[in-house]
Amino acid sequence: MRQRLMEATVDCLVELGWSGTTTTLVSRRAGVSRGAQLHHFPSKQALVVAAVEHLSDRRRDEMRRSAAHLPEEGRTRGVLEILAAQFVSPVFFAALELWVAARTDAELREAVAPLERRIGRETHAYAVELLGIDESQGDNRQLVQATLDLVRGLGLAASLSDDARRRSAVLDSWAAVLDHELEMP
Amino acid sequence: MRQRLMEATVDCLVELGWSGTTTTLVSRRAGVSRGAQLHHFPSKQALVVAAVEHLSDRRRDEMRRSAAHLPEEGRTRGVLEILAAQFVSPVFFAALELWVAARTDAELREAVAPLERRIGRETHAYAVELLGIDESQGDNRQLVQATLDLVRGLGLAASLSDDARRRSAVLDSWAAVLDHELEMP
Repeated sequence: MRQRLMEATVDCLVELGWSGTTTTLVSRRAGVSRGAQLHHFPSKQALVVAAVEHLSDRRRDEMRRSAAHLPEEGRTRGVLEILAAQFVSPVFFAALELWVAARTDAELREAVAPLERRIGRETHAYAVELLGIDESQGDNRQLVQATLDLVRGLGLAASLSDDARRRSAVLDSWAAVLDHELEMP
Repeated sequence: MRQRLMEATVDCLVELGWSGTTTTLVSRRAGVSRGAQLHHFPSKQALVVAAVEHLSDRRRDEMRRSAAHLPEEGRTRGVLEILAAQFVSPVFFAALELWVAARTDAELREAVAPLERRIGRETHAYAVELLGIDESQGDNRQLVQATLDLVRGLGLAASLSDDARRRSAVLDSWAAVLDHELEMP
């Protein structure tokens, strides 16, 4: 039941945005009674924060599985593809609704900021692992941060108009840059 | 009067977000009568799109002035500072509200998409000019696009929690990368 609620919440955010998402609509879509829903998630805020957290975790598990098949040749480009895919996913668009609503809502921001920091830290650590680098070498740490800021920026652009060809060309260049600039162990 | 309306609209978007912004509130803040406002901008959509367009143009003029004082030494880092500043400005946060609302509102998206493309094209051309490069050389075009996606991603991160130190370190590294990787004339 929790799983159904989480998915219905993300679906609502993606389709209708933050202001269009209501707890009534979510419980109807999930086929869960209002009472049961309110028992687990007493407010829209609690529901949405839990849903973004839950789906982000699940999505990271999926990423782990796709990373198991990265090729030796062109590995960096493959890593970028996996990272960038995270930022053009429904979960990212749902999170974007949440982040932007939190910008002008102090109470929501207090709930969202720790989640955003945790997701940021975990994604960073994961990128370091996939790239197989030592963060303490050279500018590696900043290059990984720049990579994550880049894919976040690409995701924001994709939220309005999908331009997969442009995105792909940018990632090709970026992979070449990383292959030149990262200090490999 | 138009100027006051444009500024009041952006102020409302920055403080209250898309859903908190109403035409009544804007006319009150701007000290403009409802009748006069409706004469110029018959809907919230018309008002907000015009405001983001107007303020983006004004902001680009300001950038032009600051670009006049770029140093020879460390010029690339200076250019990145100017570009990144555009994405942590009130106008960017106002535009972010508009872009995100447009994602789930087909009518609004139709008005916003051409504006977003125009701003994107102009910012790109401006970045090329500031960097003093030839776009047709090597990977220059993709590197400029990547730079703009990077600063957009930094701007989105800054909308939730300002981390100027992190941003500055990322831009330092990125300036060094561009100095290695861009083909200069």
